[in-house]
Amino acid sequence: MCQLLGMNANTPTDVMFSFTGLATRADEHKDGFGIAFFEDPGLRLFVDHHSARESPVAELVKRYPIRSGNVIAHIRKATQGRVALQNTHPFMRELWGRYWVMAHNGDLKGFAPRLHGNFRPVGDTDSERAFCWLMQELAKAHASVPSIAELSCTLRELLPIPAAHGTFNLLLSNGQALWAHASTSLHWLERQHPFGAARLADEDLSVDFGALTQPGDRVAMIATQPLTCDEAWRAFAPGELRVFVDGRSLVAN
Amino acid sequence: MCQLLGMNANTPTDVMFSFTGLATRADEHKDGFGIAFFEDPGLRLFVDHHSARESPVAELVKRYPIRSGNVIAHIRKATQGRVALQNTHPFMRELWGRYWVMAHNGDLKGFAPRLHGNFRPVGDTDSERAFCWLMQELAKAHASVPSIAELSCTLRELLPIPAAHGTFNLLLSNGQALWAHASTSLHWLERQHPFGAARLADEDLSVDFGALTQPGDRVAMIATQPLTCDEAWRAFAPGELRVFVDGRSLVAN
Repeated sequence: MCQLLGMNANTPTDVMFSFTGLATRADEHKDGFGIAFFEDPGLRLFVDHHSARESPVAELVKRYPIRSGNVIAHIRKATQGRVALQNTHPFMRELWGRYWVMAHNGDLKGFAPRLHGNFRPVGDTDSERAFCWLMQELAKAHASVPSIAELSCTLRELLPIPAAHGTFNLLLSNGQALWAHASTSLHWLERQHPFGAARLADEDLSVDFGALTQPGDRVAMIATQPLTCDEAWRAFAPGELRVFVDGRSLVAN
Repeated sequence: MCQLLGMNANTPTDVMFSFTGLATRADEHKDGFGIAFFEDPGLRLFVDHHSARESPVAELVKRYPIRSGNVIAHIRKATQGRVALQNTHPFMRELWGRYWVMAHNGDLKGFAPRLHGNFRPVGDTDSERAFCWLMQELAKAHASVPSIAELSCTLRELLPIPAAHGTFNLLLSNGQALWAHASTSLHWLERQHPFGAARLADEDLSVDFGALTQPGDRVAMIATQPLTCDEAWRAFAPGELRVFVDGRSLVAN
């Protein structure tokens, strides 16, 4: 299964520590990786078909402190679609003058919706097909940019449709909010004042967030499996959708 | 004025040498840079709002041999739109299940076409607005992916419209071909067997392409100003459109 990492914060924050933890898991997930950073509406999207352990692009991401309000990362173990750049998550499209980014963990069987709108897959994964369908249906449901609450309502109606075809753990962001939907495995936590220290679950590396943050900072993290071994990660329930805004989790149900 | 660099090849080729030459010119063009690499239909797009001289992302591009059939790079001197990631070229959209990438050098005055289609700017540059309009008009002109010749015909009709509003030196690619349009300043050359050596115009750096290539390789380069001082660069005529396919230049007129 692939690994997902999401970050939503009220102050631009880097994810070097968490991405290092994620990349450690890349041994079993060697079919490419990708990471998207929103900076206001702007977007950086790094993808590589090399493993996050070996890729020079991953090395850059671990060392260059890119501060972002919304991050989505993915390390891939191919289930559908060959190992190629066009099949590497996260995927990106523009809708209503905003970039949208999605990464998916899981496998959808027989989800072949009609794509009659303006979003077509470039690669051949079930994930990109589901993303294009989501964009098409969002575009049909709203004439222009809706509020985060309205988008959450529409997503609550749409997400069960692909999810009925298999496993649909999903991270989605437009740079204003981050939506997370779980089928089988997704965990989250909020970090806020007073910030403590945290140790990576897979590697002998600790960080003292207290030394790196201001009292008003708030950061929410979402990951397939808890990334640190000494923080209070909470599991999503199957079918649960949460929306993260300014580092805070809201239930979108 | 910004600087453009394009590469089109019949064999995946890296642009470390040429990008190093381009980045040398970044002193006067310090408002960000971007570079897009097509690998088949897949795409890597690196952007940074730091200068190509200082950016760790540019450093990666100079050292990591990413082999690509079509490359578009841009270093920016802001004329319209503030210095921000969403205003950094190249811009990217998906159309007909293909990624499209555009970079623009110049300045358009009062080009404010109605964007009633499905392509909206995320940032606030004249360049991204012109790109969205081009995508909209291409989508209206063809129901599905046309041939390179048909696309060239349509572009020949469309490009004079924004070009009438100012300077419109342009590189555009969908991964199958690279289109280049000049208003004021664009140069091109073809490299093929027997490959020789070349020396960067702005930096004391040479490369012997003969040692790095096979006899069948063909590479076309396009740049605002000639990048090397010992090769036969040719200037575009004002209003000229060329399409580059498999490392060969065809006039699209």
